[in-house]
Amino acid sequence: MSILIKNAYIATMDKDGTGEIQNGFLLIENNLISQIGDNSNGTADKIAADKGIDKIIDAKGAILMPGLSNTHTHLGMTLLRGYADDMALKDWLEAQIWPAEANLTAEDVYWGSLLGCLEMIRSGTTAFCDMYFFMDETAKAVEKAGIRGCLSYGMIEFGDVEKGNKEIAVNEKLVSDWQGKANGRITTMFGPHAPNTCSQAFIARAKAAAEKAGVGVQIHVLETEAELNYMKENFDMCSVHHLDAVDFWNTSKVPVIAAHCVWMSDGDIRLFAEKGVTVSHNPISNMKLASGIAPIQKMLDAGVSVTLGTDGCASNNTLNMFEEMKTAALLQKVGTMSPTALPAKAVVEMATINGGRVIDKQTGALKVGNKADMILVDTNKANAAPIFDVYSHLVYAAAGSDVKTMIVDGKILMEDYKILVLDEKEVIEKANERAHSLAARAQKC
Amino acid sequence: MSILIKNAYIATMDKDGTGEIQNGFLLIENNLISQIGDNSNGTADKIAADKGIDKIIDAKGAILMPGLSNTHTHLGMTLLRGYADDMALKDWLEAQIWPAEANLTAEDVYWGSLLGCLEMIRSGTTAFCDMYFFMDETAKAVEKAGIRGCLSYGMIEFGDVEKGNKEIAVNEKLVSDWQGKANGRITTMFGPHAPNTCSQAFIARAKAAAEKAGVGVQIHVLETEAELNYMKENFDMCSVHHLDAVDFWNTSKVPVIAAHCVWMSDGDIRLFAEKGVTVSHNPISNMKLASGIAPIQKMLDAGVSVTLGTDGCASNNTLNMFEEMKTAALLQKVGTMSPTALPAKAVVEMATINGGRVIDKQTGALKVGNKADMILVDTNKANAAPIFDVYSHLVYAAAGSDVKTMIVDGKILMEDYKILVLDEKEVIEKANERAHSLAARAQKC
Repeated sequence: MSILIKNAYIATMDKDGTGEIQNGFLLIENNLISQIGDNSNGTADKIAADKGIDKIIDAKGAILMPGLSNTHTHLGMTLLRGYADDMALKDWLEAQIWPAEANLTAEDVYWGSLLGCLEMIRSGTTAFCDMYFFMDETAKAVEKAGIRGCLSYGMIEFGDVEKGNKEIAVNEKLVSDWQGKANGRITTMFGPHAPNTCSQAFIARAKAAAEKAGVGVQIHVLETEAELNYMKENFDMCSVHHLDAVDFWNTSKVPVIAAHCVWMSDGDIRLFAEKGVTVSHNPISNMKLASGIAPIQKMLDAGVSVTLGTDGCASNNTLNMFEEMKTAALLQKVGTMSPTALPAKAVVEMATINGGRVIDKQTGALKVGNKADMILVDTNKANAAPIFDVYSHLVYAAAGSDVKTMIVDGKILMEDYKILVLDEKEVIEKANERAHSLAARAQKC
Repeated sequence: MSILIKNAYIATMDKDGTGEIQNGFLLIENNLISQIGDNSNGTADKIAADKGIDKIIDAKGAILMPGLSNTHTHLGMTLLRGYADDMALKDWLEAQIWPAEANLTAEDVYWGSLLGCLEMIRSGTTAFCDMYFFMDETAKAVEKAGIRGCLSYGMIEFGDVEKGNKEIAVNEKLVSDWQGKANGRITTMFGPHAPNTCSQAFIARAKAAAEKAGVGVQIHVLETEAELNYMKENFDMCSVHHLDAVDFWNTSKVPVIAAHCVWMSDGDIRLFAEKGVTVSHNPISNMKLASGIAPIQKMLDAGVSVTLGTDGCASNNTLNMFEEMKTAALLQKVGTMSPTALPAKAVVEMATINGGRVIDKQTGALKVGNKADMILVDTNKANAAPIFDVYSHLVYAAAGSDVKTMIVDGKILMEDYKILVLDEKEVIEKANERAHSLAARAQKC
């Protein structure tokens, strides 16, 4: 299968490469990008005349860019969108979310995950990192929907060795069953939940298991001040240094993704920069739950690789990375009281190249040899007039609903706003059914 | 003309009335709402059988609600969307925005305003308050686009009496030419710019002129800490008390809208509550320009009527009130470190009933006798599954692009995503042309 895209404004997001191409073309052969370049001399038409191209897309009036990567979410929770809002974190979790989750079935997670995949396709996200349970179901949804998923099982051990053994075994099975499946679109990681819900020894064990399997780890870190206080009271140090003591942050063998990182000290930031830890910034969730403002500009200044995540739908309540990009830029400016903090291009890099490369080294930028994961953003819209700077447009003015076409691994998932891989109506109906049934079950207990 | 809407989930936003109707109908006769109620017994079909209805809309799968009111913007600036971003306020204004504005022509403002109207229709805003210049052009655009506009001329006097005389005369002409035009869709106010760009005497004079004409006033107040410091240094008091000394905040004769109000003290808030001043909260602009976080929850607790505004497109960069609603809720939570601050329903009230009634007493809620200004929000979308609470959905999960139908003053402006009143392609093309021509002119000087 070959796809030729022509007449696009291309934002390659390739830091060492081509930057922006005003009138560009891009050739996909099988699942890889095989050519990219300027089209002002009609190169695309020459390629089409020379080669038999299966599909030509005229992208006039659209921005061609890498698909967005959402590096922290809980896709099965999509059924809990709006289940409980405007509540204190403890009440929200203990009185609402956990009782609902206790009633989740495999079927719920399958339809919730498929709904999440649909929403991501509609809003430009081609790849995501997930940490939840019933992960076989999420894997099946990713396989079907055609996007790229990096899946971990959320392990909570609370210092219980026997429970810890079982949790590790579940995550190991996820890795052995799914790593590299769907032509490499499905990858796996280990998911020790957080430093205040798992013991140091268990987290170290999860890391060792990840290194043995050759896959990365995802963990929540310093999301709340409560976690920071708990760690200081119990261990006389913060979560970052507590885990550094067991060399958890070492990324020489496998990548480490730390989600939230709201309550990071300058020393924590330096350590993450030295170790090469990837941070997943979740500004909407951090605002909605009143967790705080992560020091993202400081992290970027220190050389930390920062990415963006939506968190689960219960604390956002969408999977829309365009909302996340705009909110990230806005929050950092008001949080530092500096309008120059976190400029637009840096935000787009977080959502593309930075997030892409931690999921799959061959994604996140449009360049020859990379996997063909990309989107077309429609600019024939009122909110896209005028465009003086493409990054400013993408962050401050564009919406997820402007994404008209998505290609992942060389396959078209959505073309001109039409979803080609899922029955959209069925997914929405089934997910609604499961969500209301789940709520009824949870309210009975 | 009569329009009957049936099978809708109705959020009336009428504080003393019906609340939500699960399966409702609404009848519009001429430009007014003549009936509203429960449709579970098929009342709508009986009405249709009894009366000759010109147009029936089946709203199954949609939320029917009042159109949103944007109480602070500068519509002509829509051409400056993304013209300059990520800059310090002083550089942004003095090196970029003002030189560009100095080159604005009437034709620019006409097409910029029409583009703004189009974007507002697409994203659910039926009414807006504006403060800018070449206001005849904005009035013409509002007349053509079919929405509701409350227009003021932005008067800057800098203590110069002669300039002040001219400014008042321009605003008076706007009022005499346009007040009540287009069947009352166009109203006017006086727009003294701000307490640090106009003298106290001039602002008092503008208020007197407004009272004489029987129209309200719009003013920027305490947007930045720099304004607060300037006022304290020069007048030994803040902007609010400086203008209270000339009874500016008295709303017994005409309404007063104070935009931004970021740096309000508890005493300022009490005074606004006593006086009945309407606050226009602009969270996205306040974040993007790093102006600060307005104490909105405190204002609501004190009984101030708070509304929402997008500000101009140069500091947002959209006119999308759904983004503004979500950001308002999120910002207040993280700003107060309380996840219970500014709950969803309060935000929807800000954007509907609170904003509507300051523009036109007969708008902002769906009830018999009110003007027929309303929208249908599509819920057959991935981001709208599931919905457990309609206000949570509207604030945290819905997008401007979910608005499928808009009616203003009894006339359908958009139906099932099709704009009926403007040539969308022409507006976007002309606005793009004018914006790039303006940029070229501004860069020459």
